[in-house]
Amino acid sequence: MPTKIMSINAGSSSLKFQLFEMPTEKTVAKGLFERLGSQDNAVFSYSFGTAKEKKELNRFSHKEAVDFLLNFLIEKKILSSLEELKGVGHRVAHGGEAFPHSCVIGIQEEAVIDELCQLAPLHNPVNLVGIRSFKEALPGVKQVAVFDTAFHQTMPSKNYIYPIPYDYYTQDGIRKYGFHGTSHQYVGDEAAKALGEQVESLKIISCHLGNGASICAIKNGKSFDTSMGFTPLAGLMMGTRCGDIDPSILTYLQKNKKMTPEDVEAMMNQQSGFLGVSQLSNDSRDILKAASEDNPQARLALDIFTNRVKTTIGAYAAEMGGIDVVIFTAGIGENSAEIRQLCCSDLAFLGIELDENRNQEGQSFIQKDGKSVYVMVIPTNEELKIAQDTFELV
Amino acid sequence: MPTKIMSINAGSSSLKFQLFEMPTEKTVAKGLFERLGSQDNAVFSYSFGTAKEKKELNRFSHKEAVDFLLNFLIEKKILSSLEELKGVGHRVAHGGEAFPHSCVIGIQEEAVIDELCQLAPLHNPVNLVGIRSFKEALPGVKQVAVFDTAFHQTMPSKNYIYPIPYDYYTQDGIRKYGFHGTSHQYVGDEAAKALGEQVESLKIISCHLGNGASICAIKNGKSFDTSMGFTPLAGLMMGTRCGDIDPSILTYLQKNKKMTPEDVEAMMNQQSGFLGVSQLSNDSRDILKAASEDNPQARLALDIFTNRVKTTIGAYAAEMGGIDVVIFTAGIGENSAEIRQLCCSDLAFLGIELDENRNQEGQSFIQKDGKSVYVMVIPTNEELKIAQDTFELV
Repeated sequence: MPTKIMSINAGSSSLKFQLFEMPTEKTVAKGLFERLGSQDNAVFSYSFGTAKEKKELNRFSHKEAVDFLLNFLIEKKILSSLEELKGVGHRVAHGGEAFPHSCVIGIQEEAVIDELCQLAPLHNPVNLVGIRSFKEALPGVKQVAVFDTAFHQTMPSKNYIYPIPYDYYTQDGIRKYGFHGTSHQYVGDEAAKALGEQVESLKIISCHLGNGASICAIKNGKSFDTSMGFTPLAGLMMGTRCGDIDPSILTYLQKNKKMTPEDVEAMMNQQSGFLGVSQLSNDSRDILKAASEDNPQARLALDIFTNRVKTTIGAYAAEMGGIDVVIFTAGIGENSAEIRQLCCSDLAFLGIELDENRNQEGQSFIQKDGKSVYVMVIPTNEELKIAQDTFELV
Repeated sequence: MPTKIMSINAGSSSLKFQLFEMPTEKTVAKGLFERLGSQDNAVFSYSFGTAKEKKELNRFSHKEAVDFLLNFLIEKKILSSLEELKGVGHRVAHGGEAFPHSCVIGIQEEAVIDELCQLAPLHNPVNLVGIRSFKEALPGVKQVAVFDTAFHQTMPSKNYIYPIPYDYYTQDGIRKYGFHGTSHQYVGDEAAKALGEQVESLKIISCHLGNGASICAIKNGKSFDTSMGFTPLAGLMMGTRCGDIDPSILTYLQKNKKMTPEDVEAMMNQQSGFLGVSQLSNDSRDILKAASEDNPQARLALDIFTNRVKTTIGAYAAEMGGIDVVIFTAGIGENSAEIRQLCCSDLAFLGIELDENRNQEGQSFIQKDGKSVYVMVIPTNEELKIAQDTFELV
């Protein structure tokens, strides 16, 4: 019988699951719990085979959602028994320097993930809730952690050390960690497969553009640099995040507008990016529409966003000494031909030029014939990558 | 009789002057007052013709230094009378959006420069002290302001608007201003002259690398983008400044280490950069020496510094759609062949490759024969540019 592996992504009020049959990588069922741990009733949506449903449940904690899910899988005969489940893989936001790879979560690993809550106070705690809920419900099944940061642990120190006093690194762990590692690694490997090349032989720039967005330079099959930093705020402009800005802006606002650190943090994370510049929406689709109707701030937001992607491609090509493949992935990267086109405009001198039809159709390869750089659209699949890593470890 | 123009750069405790004969651009005399406005006696160093001297004076204010200087010029017969002086050009740090060009300083201009002290609290006030001292001493002579920011006023909005809430731009003037404009403009023009080309026809990346450091993308003869931002902290790593870092580091330090905005500001401006990473020195020469002796933090500091220059060259080439000329200027850029080499390594795919001998010798052109990108070493001369602008306006 093929092995069943569960992939879990626990958010602050949500729990996303996808059940895979391995090694076929077939999705058996998937779904999402929302509004967990709130005053409202939870909402559960799922699909398996041809079945698809969304329904309201009781008020649920994460733990209750896990128990419900396991019962549901048996009830619907998706699993014949819980014994069938050979492993559960959990997305964990922050693995710090402790976790350069995915790992089975023993007592020690769990303790370290807990310590790392300091560096990821919004994410690691809820990831732990997911891990502990499954541990309790399935004491005999191996739990695996797949870290958003792990892939980037190969960056050279010149790319992860900030030019601030060195003691902040050694004593406080302040360095670039990078995020979206699972996605960057997955699409990088997929690109190599599609090209029939070893990933080690390619210089790849992976653009994960969603509501959160980051770019990764992949050299010798390893993360060489990435645009997110100590936190997922850094780098590109995003839906509501500003990315890199002159750090003096923060102290200026605090001193001149009496803002607290919490105020500027909220401003940079929740009121900036597409939303902040356009004063319309954090959603790139709204921005594209408004820009097409000549809304100047929407146009500006689009120009800033795409220019940052473009300059980061240029920067990473420079530090890798060249570029073979550009990948677009995630919500915006997979779906917006217009944004892909804007990000690649002006880059003909690097050998990057899009074929208009291929780009419009979102084909796998969208570069013009005869261009030296492959430009690819690859759907990311973090859930599958989590299942793959878990399958390897159980 | 040729016109005499004075070029003035007033710092918090210093006043630098250079007297030019125009339009020949010959330096007649130059010098520096140090320790002004302090408890100590001022120090005056100067040179003219073959004379060169450094001497201690009394305790001097900026105003007293100006009076002393004017007397000195008459006494030494450098000027036959003060009537000979046709204009005084002042370096002014911040011209905000009000000054896209150099200008004669009338009452209104002086008031605006004063208002802009808000944006440049460390620099504009002392620049004003210099302006007012000369106005008082030479009421009949035109004073001209040459702004560090003016050249960058041509940047497109996508390059100067930060992706934070738009109101911070319209209401508080928070945007990228850029600095070192006088230097970037000067060396850009010099490069075009040396190439026998119109500056409008070239895509130039000017690297002003000194204890302060910034890069400018010059397109169609205009500043298209630059690495310094709202303040001179942003962009590259510098002697003691960190440049761009994940802005969340500031709020993390404030919340977890009880640092104030003033603390993090001091850390980022005075304890970072070469000094912070190496824990040795802010001086690139010390860092180069220690790195050659295998000091790992010195090596790391050098790698971070040069990598940021390199990635910024890549980024600006990307947004300009190509690159014709790279210029190195200022203390480090003019004098360190090793740093120039490190900044340009890996860039052969862009057509950038240095000739080892030419680079060692610091020739004007240091690229290898047959390369598509000119790489130039051009001594900056902000004083001359100030005098040129002043001569044009008086």
